Amino acid sequence: MVHRVGIDVGGTRLKVGRVADGKVVVRASDDTPHHFDRMIEVLDRLVRKVVPEDEPFTIGAGVPGVFDAEITGVVDSPNLRFLDGQPLRPRLAEVTGAEVRLGNDASVAALAEARYGKGREYPTFLLATIGTGIGGGIIVDGQLWEGVGGMAGEYGHLCAAGAFVPDEIPLCGCGHPGCLEVYASASRMTERGRQRTGEPDIHLPELAERARGGDPVAKSVFDDAGRALGEGFAQVVHLLDIRVLVLGGGAGAIVDLVREPIIDHVVGRCAGRTHGDYKVDRAILGNDAGLLGAAALLA
Amino acid sequence: MVHRVGIDVGGTRLKVGRVADGKVVVRASDDTPHHFDRMIEVLDRLVRKVVPEDEPFTIGAGVPGVFDAEITGVVDSPNLRFLDGQPLRPRLAEVTGAEVRLGNDASVAALAEARYGKGREYPTFLLATIGTGIGGGIIVDGQLWEGVGGMAGEYGHLCAAGAFVPDEIPLCGCGHPGCLEVYASASRMTERGRQRTGEPDIHLPELAERARGGDPVAKSVFDDAGRALGEGFAQVVHLLDIRVLVLGGGAGAIVDLVREPIIDHVVGRCAGRTHGDYKVDRAILGNDAGLLGAAALLA
Repeated sequence: MVHRVGIDVGGTRLKVGRVADGKVVVRASDDTPHHFDRMIEVLDRLVRKVVPEDEPFTIGAGVPGVFDAEITGVVDSPNLRFLDGQPLRPRLAEVTGAEVRLGNDASVAALAEARYGKGREYPTFLLATIGTGIGGGIIVDGQLWEGVGGMAGEYGHLCAAGAFVPDEIPLCGCGHPGCLEVYASASRMTERGRQRTGEPDIHLPELAERARGGDPVAKSVFDDAGRALGEGFAQVVHLLDIRVLVLGGGAGAIVDLVREPIIDHVVGRCAGRTHGDYKVDRAILGNDAGLLGAAALLA
Repeated sequence: MVHRVGIDVGGTRLKVGRVADGKVVVRASDDTPHHFDRMIEVLDRLVRKVVPEDEPFTIGAGVPGVFDAEITGVVDSPNLRFLDGQPLRPRLAEVTGAEVRLGNDASVAALAEARYGKGREYPTFLLATIGTGIGGGIIVDGQLWEGVGGMAGEYGHLCAAGAFVPDEIPLCGCGHPGCLEVYASASRMTERGRQRTGEPDIHLPELAERARGGDPVAKSVFDDAGRALGEGFAQVVHLLDIRVLVLGGGAGAIVDLVREPIIDHVVGRCAGRTHGDYKVDRAILGNDAGLLGAAALLA
């Protein structure tokens, strides 16, 4: 039997898990050294902790960022600059002796939902992971759609400006105006909530509670985020005719607050559609999605 | 041998052709009656003209508009309102006795390019058909990507506003501000050229000639269109990691004028990419693409 190991490369933590029957059965983790060679050493050590000695295994690794065409390394990872241009896949294969495959972190989370979570309800969907930024992964008939170079599913950088013109259009971290991420990431929602309430320390869960209680200022933050998410989802509908949006990441808990504005916007934006054509739901695998999906890359 | 018949349903003409070896070998056409039952009669007559009596055939039909989930009829076709909600596929099958499949007109043009045209160079690409409006079709590994309900590839309604903020954002025919179509369709380019030159009768070929000769006013029209096409293509790159854009339709002839602005914009818009990652090319099948691709739907 060949064991399956998943690696979740985060900016602060490296998580490694052995996966069996859709569950993480052994775990190990450590801080992320921001140096390529040291990261490889730590990963090798963690992998050996979770796999019985002398037994064969494969590795899937979920990494934030954009891959080159051969998916050998990471070309552009804004939060892990030390990975830029490094031969992550071959090096990891060399030190561990295992077959290795890389996937974008949001894409592998989508794959996990496809195999063990929401995929039981929806064969085709887009998963948006909403946190500091917004990532995405596309599942078509149960399979991960990676694109020519593994970069598909960058939902956060779709243009949402059309939902807000002629308002002022803020700049995204990527340098471009009007990306979905600048309206609807958890950090931007929090920032907007702080500005609008005048309370510099308020957090998203408290804002969400107030919005659920009917507070119009708090509600406006989620309405705007929903409109932006809907504008991005409209591009997905136009291009791919995918009709299910699954929200994950830290802000998956606010799906009740953004569902209606999202669907309202998509229906208004995409001719000939009705509310019943769409579903907006939340991811169910939580923090394990990264490990489970990474391990599934080679399954 | 089962013959293959393609139907191209246009707003003014119905074209029918029998296809063999990637070529239209027999043709027939007539005006489009803007009445569903009469259109079915005319199509039945045209189909019988191109197929030898008593020999079996299949029919593929390319239709402008948006299909319902079962692709039985056309839910929303702005230029062919008489088709809305009609059971086009079953009725055509009933009167002709043939198996029938429908496809969006731009999608079948993409399928034709995949089988007999640009597909020889590019296994995966997006075809944008630029005319009065802008349609699109997505080819992945040689196969047409139709989406859940055959509506995929609506390139013309992606949001291009992000490329123009904080300029005024014009309304699209679909009612939404900032669609790619309002910046880069042939009709909008012509309109903009007329405004900017002050010549109310100038046409696109003359504008293109002037731009090629270095005229800055004419050039500005194609630069803006290219920027919009690039903003739309950036969404395609972000979502699907598709790197080849093929331009077809009436404005395929201006690819030399928009190629650079498109690629410049995509590279600026999508982090970690370089000019060499992308190709912008023109379709090669011309007016026969619709018939060839429609006939290929069942092949």
